[in-house]
Amino acid sequence: MFKILSFLVAGILFMSCQCGQQAGAARKKVNPIVVATPERPAGQTDVVGLTTPKLDTVRVGFIGLGMRGPGAVSRFTHIPGTKVVALCDIRPERVEAAQNILKKAGLPEAAAYSGSEDAWKQLCERDDIDLVYIATDWKHHALMGVYAMEHGKHVAIEVPAAMTLDEIWALINTSEKTRKHCMQLENCVYDFFELTTLNMAQQGVFGDVLHVEGSYIHNLEEFWSEYWNNWRMDYNRKNRGDVYATHGMGPACQLLGIHRGDRMDYLVAMDTKAVNGPAIVEKSTGEKVEDFQNGDQTTTVIRTKNGKTMLIQHNVMTPRPYSRMYQLVGTDGYASKYPIQEYCLRPAQIDSKDVPNHENLNAHGSVPEKVKKALMDKYKHPIHIELEETAKKVGGHGGMDYIMDYRLVYCLRNGLPLDMDVYDLAEWCCMAELTRLSIENSSAPVAVPDFTRGGWQKVDGYRHAFVK
Amino acid sequence: MFKILSFLVAGILFMSCQCGQQAGAARKKVNPIVVATPERPAGQTDVVGLTTPKLDTVRVGFIGLGMRGPGAVSRFTHIPGTKVVALCDIRPERVEAAQNILKKAGLPEAAAYSGSEDAWKQLCERDDIDLVYIATDWKHHALMGVYAMEHGKHVAIEVPAAMTLDEIWALINTSEKTRKHCMQLENCVYDFFELTTLNMAQQGVFGDVLHVEGSYIHNLEEFWSEYWNNWRMDYNRKNRGDVYATHGMGPACQLLGIHRGDRMDYLVAMDTKAVNGPAIVEKSTGEKVEDFQNGDQTTTVIRTKNGKTMLIQHNVMTPRPYSRMYQLVGTDGYASKYPIQEYCLRPAQIDSKDVPNHENLNAHGSVPEKVKKALMDKYKHPIHIELEETAKKVGGHGGMDYIMDYRLVYCLRNGLPLDMDVYDLAEWCCMAELTRLSIENSSAPVAVPDFTRGGWQKVDGYRHAFVK
Repeated sequence: MFKILSFLVAGILFMSCQCGQQAGAARKKVNPIVVATPERPAGQTDVVGLTTPKLDTVRVGFIGLGMRGPGAVSRFTHIPGTKVVALCDIRPERVEAAQNILKKAGLPEAAAYSGSEDAWKQLCERDDIDLVYIATDWKHHALMGVYAMEHGKHVAIEVPAAMTLDEIWALINTSEKTRKHCMQLENCVYDFFELTTLNMAQQGVFGDVLHVEGSYIHNLEEFWSEYWNNWRMDYNRKNRGDVYATHGMGPACQLLGIHRGDRMDYLVAMDTKAVNGPAIVEKSTGEKVEDFQNGDQTTTVIRTKNGKTMLIQHNVMTPRPYSRMYQLVGTDGYASKYPIQEYCLRPAQIDSKDVPNHENLNAHGSVPEKVKKALMDKYKHPIHIELEETAKKVGGHGGMDYIMDYRLVYCLRNGLPLDMDVYDLAEWCCMAELTRLSIENSSAPVAVPDFTRGGWQKVDGYRHAFVK
Repeated sequence: MFKILSFLVAGILFMSCQCGQQAGAARKKVNPIVVATPERPAGQTDVVGLTTPKLDTVRVGFIGLGMRGPGAVSRFTHIPGTKVVALCDIRPERVEAAQNILKKAGLPEAAAYSGSEDAWKQLCERDDIDLVYIATDWKHHALMGVYAMEHGKHVAIEVPAAMTLDEIWALINTSEKTRKHCMQLENCVYDFFELTTLNMAQQGVFGDVLHVEGSYIHNLEEFWSEYWNNWRMDYNRKNRGDVYATHGMGPACQLLGIHRGDRMDYLVAMDTKAVNGPAIVEKSTGEKVEDFQNGDQTTTVIRTKNGKTMLIQHNVMTPRPYSRMYQLVGTDGYASKYPIQEYCLRPAQIDSKDVPNHENLNAHGSVPEKVKKALMDKYKHPIHIELEETAKKVGGHGGMDYIMDYRLVYCLRNGLPLDMDVYDLAEWCCMAELTRLSIENSSAPVAVPDFTRGGWQKVDGYRHAFVK
């Protein structure tokens, strides 16, 4: 990894915090901590709106066939215009299991890679693959992504695709240099309420969207032992901060059009002490843990250049109902998904042709179920109109995994920009390192780098690409 | 006001933020902004657990009979052991209206004060009043509270009881000097779900409470014109930050036992731009407002000395369902009030004698309605067991206003510490100034003063006082 990342910033620079005695207007303000943005290497440009030549068939190789990989292989057997060329996992039995998925679907066996620590490199080096699909543990994501792009492949990487700023800049620079797509496999942006609400927001139903919320709140107490070599708990033990922010960040950033006319300016983060984390380790290993880093719950607040705010939470440790929060506060309306799906709108925002009893609505309470249904029908997203039926049949988190994979293939086959680019990946993943930095400095504000290095205003608002 | 406050800190001191180049462990940390804590005047001690001689009858004078005052007068006509001695409002017709409330209840007329800017002072100077009950606009609360205590009266002050740190320290110093009670009339701590859940928390049902949430989310678009001289919108126009935090802070701080073994360490705050605020002013006055300070939504996160976190929000500007959030995250369970009342608990936390199908519970979802009902019956708070029926009959925000007034009178009559002391008032009100300070410094962390000046660990956990 060191070589690959050698062009990156070696350390983090801090702008001085300008403090002093208060003296009315003359008092100097405290400024956010600034981490260095590495200069763009000579001769390369941004990949905002990147398109690549149409592919008739997307030939794919999978790396990582433990928890998430097999489901992806299975979904690809349902997506037209794809060919599963190669399969890789360090454990041969996982490759075998995936071969069985292909067999059951009546498809030919794929080339198999396993048994050694770098079997995945051979997969990336093949010349008959267009896309490398990576679903390993977090720690190998970026390394593999960079290597695959360096060998001429598009890459799709499970969440979080990168854990550090070094990894993020490596992926960005490699995508910009090779002109290959680098997409993070964030599925939650395709869920039904989220995509419908995004469509409403894009059509102005909520007015100006001022505040959004998202989270990963999922009590993992029964899941920890499922992770290979216990890597996930180990990661939480060693790292403070929101280490798994993308499920909340994705839908929130799309609502605000991040790097499509707005961008994150600075963030502050705060965590609780770690209680259940070390207790779970002690219960399963007997080890008394004194150095557990990740707080049981972490809260992050982010401000954008256009004066919007985002609230992001992370909690995988305590008994709570599952929640990705997903909330939108606009000047003319409100949407929220958990624990119940709600809309609240000024009556004037709703066309009386579309919803019953429109005159009885008010701006203080949720619209009734009937009105909600009418709204969700009217604003159903074109992607759902096309794919809902198949997605629910194929499955994978209620269909959103299928839609994610389908859209990736659709855009590659049609030479369109992908729904999520390498800057989305960067923005959603940078939370891990930047929130740790804030927390370790008493929740001090930390500036969020402009990962596009100047390109965040080229596109006006988030849009999915379609064949015209 | 200047004289009264002359002993207070004149300016705000900042500790220097120690910044510099990162150099691993050697890098200096950023520290919170620190506001000065004035030294305790010689010869006075804290009022933690303050008790005062029993009162057979609580003789009360009301100041401010606009929006909240008349309801309070009406409730007092139902509380045994009270006598309404005097009524004051700048507008004589408001005093008249309150006299009618007494008349309808078959009670004698009270002494009337009105017509001049300082009629309220004469009320405070009477020698036949034990308690001054203040329900004016925010800007006069602290001034009147200080004056009443200086004239030997206990005071109860509507929320927020103080808007600045100067006002807060004036109330604290005056209460400590005069040994008079100074209670903020925060009603939301007495609501049914809140008090039941507090009881559960106190009995360990949720394990260690790690994180709490609260808010004031109330779309006031139809209410702005009701405030005398438009003072409330004017206050929002001139002041950035969470200017109305107590409804969220009160229940949250009681759950964490703030200044009963824990205390707030530092906070960070962030707001959205102001859009609807200035638009409402423009719509009603035609004035194009360029200097509107209060963001449409403000978010604050607070960390305590014991490593707990609090999330507080404020939004009175956009269409949203009403919410005080009220959420509790514990090591063994979870509670949330809005938009639906939910509990989530490890099965081991629930006694199988008390709840049906106890073995089917899990730590990933809300308990079913039947279990929730059984829990809420079992943990019904003694205060509600005693007062629920009367409270619902008398009314006032569903009964919690009556319970608040009743408890105030009960404690005064029995010589018990009040449910809320002047330090609660300080902690819940300091948000206005401290969040503004954070926001104006790019959300920099701001240390929360120890308003008890050393007494925050004298009491272990929050408890209501009862006659034994």
